[in-house]
Amino acid sequence: MRQFRSDNTFLSLLGALFIVLSLALPSSAEEAPKLDVDVFSLDNGLQVVVIPQRRVPIVTHLLAYKVGGADEPAGLSGMAHFFEHLMFKGTEKHPAGELDAAVQAVGGDHNAFTNHDSTVYYQRITPDALPQMMEFEADRMRNLILNDEVIETERQVVLEERLMRTDNDPGGILGEAFSATLYTNHPYGRPVIGWRHEIETVTREQLTDFYDSHYVPNNAILVVAGDVDTETVKKLAEETYGKVERGPDLPERVRPMEPPSRTERTVTLADDRVSIPSFSQAWLAPAAYSDERQFNDALAVLGEILGGSERSRLHRRLVIKERIAARVFAYLYGARDSARFVVGADPINAEALETVEAAIREELEAVIRDGVTAEELETAKKVYESAIIFQRENLMRRAVQYASDLIEGASVDELDDTRERLEAVTLENIQEAAKKYLLLDKSVKAYLRPAK
Amino acid sequence: MRQFRSDNTFLSLLGALFIVLSLALPSSAEEAPKLDVDVFSLDNGLQVVVIPQRRVPIVTHLLAYKVGGADEPAGLSGMAHFFEHLMFKGTEKHPAGELDAAVQAVGGDHNAFTNHDSTVYYQRITPDALPQMMEFEADRMRNLILNDEVIETERQVVLEERLMRTDNDPGGILGEAFSATLYTNHPYGRPVIGWRHEIETVTREQLTDFYDSHYVPNNAILVVAGDVDTETVKKLAEETYGKVERGPDLPERVRPMEPPSRTERTVTLADDRVSIPSFSQAWLAPAAYSDERQFNDALAVLGEILGGSERSRLHRRLVIKERIAARVFAYLYGARDSARFVVGADPINAEALETVEAAIREELEAVIRDGVTAEELETAKKVYESAIIFQRENLMRRAVQYASDLIEGASVDELDDTRERLEAVTLENIQEAAKKYLLLDKSVKAYLRPAK
Repeated sequence: MRQFRSDNTFLSLLGALFIVLSLALPSSAEEAPKLDVDVFSLDNGLQVVVIPQRRVPIVTHLLAYKVGGADEPAGLSGMAHFFEHLMFKGTEKHPAGELDAAVQAVGGDHNAFTNHDSTVYYQRITPDALPQMMEFEADRMRNLILNDEVIETERQVVLEERLMRTDNDPGGILGEAFSATLYTNHPYGRPVIGWRHEIETVTREQLTDFYDSHYVPNNAILVVAGDVDTETVKKLAEETYGKVERGPDLPERVRPMEPPSRTERTVTLADDRVSIPSFSQAWLAPAAYSDERQFNDALAVLGEILGGSERSRLHRRLVIKERIAARVFAYLYGARDSARFVVGADPINAEALETVEAAIREELEAVIRDGVTAEELETAKKVYESAIIFQRENLMRRAVQYASDLIEGASVDELDDTRERLEAVTLENIQEAAKKYLLLDKSVKAYLRPAK
Repeated sequence: MRQFRSDNTFLSLLGALFIVLSLALPSSAEEAPKLDVDVFSLDNGLQVVVIPQRRVPIVTHLLAYKVGGADEPAGLSGMAHFFEHLMFKGTEKHPAGELDAAVQAVGGDHNAFTNHDSTVYYQRITPDALPQMMEFEADRMRNLILNDEVIETERQVVLEERLMRTDNDPGGILGEAFSATLYTNHPYGRPVIGWRHEIETVTREQLTDFYDSHYVPNNAILVVAGDVDTETVKKLAEETYGKVERGPDLPERVRPMEPPSRTERTVTLADDRVSIPSFSQAWLAPAAYSDERQFNDALAVLGEILGGSERSRLHRRLVIKERIAARVFAYLYGARDSARFVVGADPINAEALETVEAAIREELEAVIRDGVTAEELETAKKVYESAIIFQRENLMRRAVQYASDLIEGASVDELDDTRERLEAVTLENIQEAAKKYLLLDKSVKAYLRPAK
């Protein structure tokens, strides 16, 4: 139900985070058993999750920090993402480039991503390289060289990234304003990459303070998955991460919450670089581990039914029957404090924007009025189950998912409960969730148009 | 140019803060000389402004704290306004009601207001009551009783106020969402009264911390105006406020700034309690004491020309000629970090909303294309000058204005410069300001409609 994470640092309006679900159905759902997972903590507070699976000689080593774009002080947006860059700039012991070379040497790969709730660094390597990776990662947790030269160089790189992904991209500009309009009080309204003027002005001192308070073992989760046993991981973790001193306790992650949405809001960008117009509509919804999680589950399934595939209601109507849209989408995007339900379509031309919007409204009204059918629910569940199986087969994705789930508030017992939660979704849940959360005149709509 | 403050704790969409300008013109602008103003500081950091004017035996005693809705930590909105209430709940020495009784006893009046930048307490009394007022005010600066009983009682009063002013008022709901949409990053987007869920949950400890850090002499400005001399004020101030210990230094008031607005946004509320529909459109503009202050001045004058009076362009067109609006408005609302320019009208019925919007757009296009006329500029300046004179005659307003100006960033030398700044506004300034700031497809629009 909780979706796979994208490596993108920010939400693309046009569905970069769209759940990859259109996979072949498995012959049986029995193929996705719960895995053995060992969880323990080091004395310095580092939480360790081990997923032994020895079928192929590959290990995923992942370190997730419980810090993201929503943890930055107001006015200092982009710091978590800035560190996603700075963490590759080297320490006294391991200069920039050394980690990359070591990963390359064993034919592995590595990457990092930042979202509003976490910053994650991971490598996929052969088992013999694991001790080295753990040593590298433990070293850069506290020993980064953060001098002016490093920071100024990387500031330019980040600004360039922002230029490419947002400032020079109409979809990026609109997506940023869409989020900022959807969230009026919660820091999820800020771009993870940061507002340009704040990236430009954040100081070395502010970055260093942020590093010192958040990049500590008691604010991180280590996940090691694959061809490894728990004892080995434990020993290695104690020899590497275990040597890092515990940091001061962090305050509880209580972010400013949204007031109820009581107005209809729109965001429009008309730009002559736009060739494909787009319409999106969004609402806030309960988080995956909130008290109202059943609505989170129901809305995830509804997303699949409305716009998740070529079988979906919107695809069949707008793309196939009426031929007014080139693409449709509907999905629930989750995060620690709240999820957002997004529905929309790319009309075949700007004139069709309003027709597409009206058709989506009709389909939403139909769900609120009549619910969905038992067949649709069954099919959606099968699609999700298949996706879960494929995800579980991919240990890298599984490691990322476990870290994300823990950071979003899952207990260890809840880590593999996706299928049970999915199975529990009923027709009534879906209709109730739609009625309760998809208020037709209390949404935020975004319009991307070619300039007149 | 900077407008008079309203006693309202939050911006009303419908122009509660609209500048009161429709006053009779004076025979000559020579009637408004600069006043003698004495400014000094006590050892504990309290800034004191004395405006001796001994024509009538009345004194205004005002204490402005440099703390408002934009100074609250994210997630704790409404604390500054909460204190506007708590400050009347009494100290050990002076129980609740004593201040009020003392003011009544001399036939005076007193009040308080909060905005995003300041919280202001003032009394208008006879000169003999001044020592007592100063003693009261200095006492409650540090000695408020902040127990659970006081806080819970006042929390209910504040929630009731919020219910009445915002939650039960469609215009209030829309106004709140309008501000929250206009400001995506700056705390000016939050309601001064606070989000309901945050008023409900703020703790005694959080309120006490806020009081201890912000209600200190080095974070306040005392203004005493009227039938009093500076020596007397100095002596009294030292005997009262002078006994209060200086608080820890406060950090510079640097708030998160807005990114450039690059999309068009709308906020709509359709509600069956709405009988008079309304259309408003807003843009951010430079603050009065910013580097671009000339545009602040120019936009203030443009507000008057567009919608400030029955002579204004919008009134003549929409109310008199086309008869599609019952009321028009256009004004610049200032604050420390940025101003907002607002234009709009109440159409005679909901069907006329779009016509009114289109007409306002045409009038804005005309200003951007052709500017305004020399006659319009001349008349607007006269109206403002008249307003300045009337304001200067009202010592209470003058005291409030001085405190506001100092808090918005004026130096003491700039306190009486309004007329000079106004005089300096040119036709070119106005056109340039309109062109630069009133971007027609980068505004935020608000629509208040009756329910369908």
